[in-house]
Amino acid sequence: MKAYALLGGPRQLWPKNIKEILTAAQKNGDLIIGVDRGSFLLEELNIIPDLAIGDFDSLKPSELAKIEVTVKDIRYSNPIKDLTDSELMIQTAFKDYHVADLTLLGATGGRIDHFLVNLFMILNPDIRKFADQITLIDCQNKIKFFGAGEYKVQKEEGYPYFGVASLEEVKNLNILGSRYLLEKFSSLYPRIFSSNEFLPNTHSFDLKLDSGLVAVIFSKDIDRFYNI
Amino acid sequence: MKAYALLGGPRQLWPKNIKEILTAAQKNGDLIIGVDRGSFLLEELNIIPDLAIGDFDSLKPSELAKIEVTVKDIRYSNPIKDLTDSELMIQTAFKDYHVADLTLLGATGGRIDHFLVNLFMILNPDIRKFADQITLIDCQNKIKFFGAGEYKVQKEEGYPYFGVASLEEVKNLNILGSRYLLEKFSSLYPRIFSSNEFLPNTHSFDLKLDSGLVAVIFSKDIDRFYNI
Repeated sequence: MKAYALLGGPRQLWPKNIKEILTAAQKNGDLIIGVDRGSFLLEELNIIPDLAIGDFDSLKPSELAKIEVTVKDIRYSNPIKDLTDSELMIQTAFKDYHVADLTLLGATGGRIDHFLVNLFMILNPDIRKFADQITLIDCQNKIKFFGAGEYKVQKEEGYPYFGVASLEEVKNLNILGSRYLLEKFSSLYPRIFSSNEFLPNTHSFDLKLDSGLVAVIFSKDIDRFYNI
Repeated sequence: MKAYALLGGPRQLWPKNIKEILTAAQKNGDLIIGVDRGSFLLEELNIIPDLAIGDFDSLKPSELAKIEVTVKDIRYSNPIKDLTDSELMIQTAFKDYHVADLTLLGATGGRIDHFLVNLFMILNPDIRKFADQITLIDCQNKIKFFGAGEYKVQKEEGYPYFGVASLEEVKNLNILGSRYLLEKFSSLYPRIFSSNEFLPNTHSFDLKLDSGLVAVIFSKDIDRFYNI
């Protein structure tokens, strides 16, 4: 089973076709999750989540009441806690619902501390075991995660650029078969190699690392956001 | 001398009063820097930068021509290079212009690989020596950086929340005198402690770390962005 989770990030950064994505997913029997304010935002899209997780402190009582009537599985988190709402959601999705992969929406933009929660949580040992099953999507970025290993990273249609961010100590990182190349790069601290591109007539690049965790950020320029 | 640099991030995320900030700064004799597309965006605000840096590949020839006529100091970067445009700008500002502190605008939002360049570059040894003189600002976030040491971090007016992100291995990180506390936290990889708040009637919190580099992200919720 696939899963889609909507977090509380600003809707201006959601993928344009979010309603179509989520409606088709629900029709397909995929799991729909609302994280904190994301639960209410789903209901505003006329999509009732299967699972809602959060302390819901950003919701008005009337908004929370609506969720409590419609959502079958609600997990209340403690605002003073070891796991963030995003982390609790990921554990619940993979451990209780045994989902095969999980797409996070509304995970970017707005307060930068919130975005970094969603990016850095992948490094938490409880979460990183699911890293290769997690994707973040917004209106101009798609982020996937790769641990030690050797990969042919497939081009994502509509995203001409990619960047590779090592999120922690990395050993022997290689980016090959792309416009800009990187060979045997090691670092004790995070680094990002941005604005790379796929070679013409290719559909993948080669990624290899001996240790560490990297985020591959596929991206595109968009006029919509710039022209508001 | 203070300095302000405008990068190419989407204008929807700029501080609302960016034109007032930059006009007052220029009147005050502060250095105004445009980074790549930011140089042209400054001219659109009727502010001629003192310094423009970039490979300018995102500009049309007519846009670049305008900059070449008006800007006194232009540094052309090589797109295949060791330093990013942002890093080259920071080195130029501190080494050639000897600025005392530097505020980055247009450094957030848009393509996430671009934002991470601006965040992670602080860890580059050539840049981190200036870390405590660099501030990133957008319409709802203000980011400052702190290395090993003990600080009373002052409240920023209008920003009720703060998060502390360790951007690399950190030893004995303490966040005290705030709503949520952290004591003697150590980690080999980045972590973020988000959504913290200043205590009522206080104007600072205590930050202490034995090693590592942390970003303190001051933030606020904004209706403007959510209601577009």
